[in-house]
Amino acid sequence: MPSSPAPELPVLDDVEDAARRLEGHAVVTPLLESPLLNERLGCRLLVKAEMLQKTGSFKFRGAYNRVSRTGGRGVVAYSSGNHGQGVAAAAKILGLPSLIVMPGDAPAVKIANTRAHGAEIVFYDRDSENREEIAARIADERGADLIRPYDDARIIAGQGTVGLELAAQARAAEASLDALLVPCGGGGLISGCALALAGLSPDTEVHAVEPEGFDDTARSLEAGRRLANEAGARSFCDALMVPTPGEMTFAINARLLSNGLVVGDRDVARAMAVLFACFKVVAEPGGAVALAACLSGAFDCRGKTVAVVSSGGNVDAGTFRDALEGAGP
Amino acid sequence: MPSSPAPELPVLDDVEDAARRLEGHAVVTPLLESPLLNERLGCRLLVKAEMLQKTGSFKFRGAYNRVSRTGGRGVVAYSSGNHGQGVAAAAKILGLPSLIVMPGDAPAVKIANTRAHGAEIVFYDRDSENREEIAARIADERGADLIRPYDDARIIAGQGTVGLELAAQARAAEASLDALLVPCGGGGLISGCALALAGLSPDTEVHAVEPEGFDDTARSLEAGRRLANEAGARSFCDALMVPTPGEMTFAINARLLSNGLVVGDRDVARAMAVLFACFKVVAEPGGAVALAACLSGAFDCRGKTVAVVSSGGNVDAGTFRDALEGAGP
Repeated sequence: MPSSPAPELPVLDDVEDAARRLEGHAVVTPLLESPLLNERLGCRLLVKAEMLQKTGSFKFRGAYNRVSRTGGRGVVAYSSGNHGQGVAAAAKILGLPSLIVMPGDAPAVKIANTRAHGAEIVFYDRDSENREEIAARIADERGADLIRPYDDARIIAGQGTVGLELAAQARAAEASLDALLVPCGGGGLISGCALALAGLSPDTEVHAVEPEGFDDTARSLEAGRRLANEAGARSFCDALMVPTPGEMTFAINARLLSNGLVVGDRDVARAMAVLFACFKVVAEPGGAVALAACLSGAFDCRGKTVAVVSSGGNVDAGTFRDALEGAGP
Repeated sequence: MPSSPAPELPVLDDVEDAARRLEGHAVVTPLLESPLLNERLGCRLLVKAEMLQKTGSFKFRGAYNRVSRTGGRGVVAYSSGNHGQGVAAAAKILGLPSLIVMPGDAPAVKIANTRAHGAEIVFYDRDSENREEIAARIADERGADLIRPYDDARIIAGQGTVGLELAAQARAAEASLDALLVPCGGGGLISGCALALAGLSPDTEVHAVEPEGFDDTARSLEAGRRLANEAGARSFCDALMVPTPGEMTFAINARLLSNGLVVGDRDVARAMAVLFACFKVVAEPGGAVALAACLSGAFDCRGKTVAVVSSGGNVDAGTFRDALEGAGP
């Protein structure tokens, strides 16, 4: 069997095209700054607040950009979380049917939210079934489009609009960025942002941030090839749990990223508390890792101008309360 | 002794002038929407997220507009909270010295935040001293400007930029506003917003929202004259505790507001939890009263398009955790 041709990687033009498509549909999330935290850290720190995006995470951007190019038969996605909500919300706005494949043990609130965005839900058994196969089969049966979470040029380009906005907002704030830190799971958000920054702010170093146990991109960047995480690893950062870097995303990241940084659960909880106290926003654990890298010293931000992306805020009240408590006063 | 002439009330032009002055200095806070909450409430609800403003509340707007017109001898304000931080932050940006008169028993975090914005702090004894007299005396001694929290045309005009932005953002979202609900303490924010809406969206009804025990504006609007709250009243909503409506603010509000609505502590805690879950933002109790009026039924929002201002997010972690817990899942 001949191997399929390598999928075409997105470029800056695709990110700018996505930005035009998202205009009036996505929230232009603010780039926040806290003089108090700046003083404490000895740096200038800017936070791109993507928890304020529609559906509570950046995922809406890529989903809308991708779903807006699909036919009338609708879309199918597999996701236990933010990608599913993004696809469902985008499909609803575009008047298309959506179906999300979710694990049977997904939290009730995520099921309810996905349903409220108008999606049909099909459950699968995490232990015995393969969600990608189920989603592909359903898409095939219905003539619907399967929307992958990150290995898709339109998804990457859509997420990259975070970087486009951020670069323009930093310029307006007279901030010349030394570094940008971005949470990294499959790598869609950071690869898109890296494309945008390479074009608009080429002197800015871009760093991936991952939680312990899911540092596949950090290790893969060092090795120069895609490495997997240990099977069965768990993390507080549910949104960042992937088996390996994406194929397309890693092809971009290997070329454009400086390196990968790793943070622990305690650092993440502390970052959630700082986002609460200094920026008045709600971050989910995976959405707090980039700030955590600055607070923990995994990234030395002193004397620099640094932007961090806070990628989402879909966290339940109990987890959030625990993070505030564990982080101390 | 002849009475002093009535101070000149601000008009829409003053609000537009303030907006130009704030450009590049204040955060253009987003107008957020949750399809899920819309469905639950049977309305279209938009939230103006002023907790994302510099210093964590709308107060920065009025303070910057006012302080930017002062001389080189600096500014003095009395405040245990958001106004003090707004004045200190504005003075710092403008390179002016600031002095804030605070009660000796103010929370450590508020003292630290005010100091971090570069202000000198003078403490007074809540039980035996009058903070207005102390602040006026210090301002007089130093030749500095005393910045009042709401009874000042430039302060009102600055807060009114919330309404200007909100009206433009609602238009961009194709939302024709039936009503705007705004938290009301001294009345600076709502009188400024009412000026903006009367000019830009004259069919929108504007309602004040106050906590139980501090419903002075609601009762004053009914009576057609300024009435006081009972001495010694306390509230969960510390930012909204004032003795009576302001003189200038009430002159505007009596002309432009529909009426006043009142909410209880439980409604406020529930609104804080909804702002957390549906909008991913941190509201302080006083910043959640307008949404609370929609959730409690004090305002019947069904079938309407309604905007609420969430005015600030300066709340300590313990209070916030209690609000999330008390509100249930």
